[in-house]
Amino acid sequence: MKKKPTILITNDDGIDAQGIRFLIDAMRDLGNIVVVAPDSPQSGMGHAITVQTPLRLKKRIHETDYQEYSCNGTPVDCVKLGEQVVIKDLPDLLVSGVNHGSNASINIVYSGTMAAVIEGCIDRIPSVGFSMNDFSHHLDFEPARNIIRHIAKNILQNRLPDGICLNVNLPVEKEIKGIQVTRQANARWKEEFDTRTDPRGKDYHWLTGKFEYLDNGHENDVNAMKNGYASVVPVKIDLTAYDQIDNLKYLETNIGTD
Amino acid sequence: MKKKPTILITNDDGIDAQGIRFLIDAMRDLGNIVVVAPDSPQSGMGHAITVQTPLRLKKRIHETDYQEYSCNGTPVDCVKLGEQVVIKDLPDLLVSGVNHGSNASINIVYSGTMAAVIEGCIDRIPSVGFSMNDFSHHLDFEPARNIIRHIAKNILQNRLPDGICLNVNLPVEKEIKGIQVTRQANARWKEEFDTRTDPRGKDYHWLTGKFEYLDNGHENDVNAMKNGYASVVPVKIDLTAYDQIDNLKYLETNIGTD
Repeated sequence: MKKKPTILITNDDGIDAQGIRFLIDAMRDLGNIVVVAPDSPQSGMGHAITVQTPLRLKKRIHETDYQEYSCNGTPVDCVKLGEQVVIKDLPDLLVSGVNHGSNASINIVYSGTMAAVIEGCIDRIPSVGFSMNDFSHHLDFEPARNIIRHIAKNILQNRLPDGICLNVNLPVEKEIKGIQVTRQANARWKEEFDTRTDPRGKDYHWLTGKFEYLDNGHENDVNAMKNGYASVVPVKIDLTAYDQIDNLKYLETNIGTD
Repeated sequence: MKKKPTILITNDDGIDAQGIRFLIDAMRDLGNIVVVAPDSPQSGMGHAITVQTPLRLKKRIHETDYQEYSCNGTPVDCVKLGEQVVIKDLPDLLVSGVNHGSNASINIVYSGTMAAVIEGCIDRIPSVGFSMNDFSHHLDFEPARNIIRHIAKNILQNRLPDGICLNVNLPVEKEIKGIQVTRQANARWKEEFDTRTDPRGKDYHWLTGKFEYLDNGHENDVNAMKNGYASVVPVKIDLTAYDQIDNLKYLETNIGTD
């Protein structure tokens, strides 16, 4: 009999968030499950790692085919600890999420959910992040169950090319129409700081922002969701803009001495 | 007379680090300088943003052509505040660093220095990060002055294509041989947690690691520095692996209902 695969599960909303509880349930029969997730919400942590303070793991459940730990670190810390301290090997699959809120388009850059996935990918683990297009604490993830399991089962079977991971974003629909494999939409967050004055007369600033869609095309992750599809974007960990290397060769010459 | 350009300067080692003081000095005569940098070291913060606590700016210097603020947030927060609250417009150039330690290869993913640069790039500011290949607190940045000024002056004049920023890494040499425009080397950090037991008998884990070079080629940022050159890597904010979209189309079909 083939050995059961090991599946590492994490997120950035914290171990008690509804999204990760749903993801654990959806993965439960696909392998031996190891959950290592932050003990508190870590949204917006990007690819932060903890180097100044020691990390602690708290064992919550320890059964043969199901282990659950919370951790005082970031999502990336959770992946590193899951691999090195808990599993002591590479899992066969890493899934992160389900995030409460979209990580489509430029959101991927700020996302702790996707940072965990990128970390897994750096370590050559087939890694997939799932996010749902709604920030509410209470969401109906059920319509996404088949999509999530379909992708997880396929990646367990086929793995992913080296240096590639997946960013999956799910629309909030009673019936999701299907999957579109597509690209990251061009967009950004336009900051609008909410500046206030504290009781001692000093200013402070809350970060707020508006999502600005800047894409000229149609086939992208934002539109896939708008049309009722789950979007799957293959993501690279090599950030080099290869088509710009030649354009920038002019920088190599005539370095003045002022 | 042409308006003097505005140059926003930040880093992740904190506003009093030797690297940013050197960078400020090297930029001083190239434009109106606005420094907004973290009040304490933020290494390893990746692309973290501060959403749960308010941000505070502390004015340190306010002259016509030179302003300096420290901030309680991350490098990315500093860029957002610099644009929106201090300059209230887009600067003509954003420079970040000089980081104490290399951000070549996979280090870019964890780097607060480069997260600030990527944030500037998202906002369509020509943005460049500078890092020196040595973690010491006290470094001789002087041999890099001409390289840094050469790149800054060229980017002020020619700008950068939309969605592209630069990751510049500087070797520790008395004489830097020149500049190589190249690509991100394939490598990773192999974690080796240092696990200890506290006085109450509970385990804690310090994150440590070894840099594993996995690249089969020669022309990359790590080798450029090894050969005594400054490396310049053009970096994309679109993380889509375009060449994998077709390969993964198989995921779009046969979504079972279990």
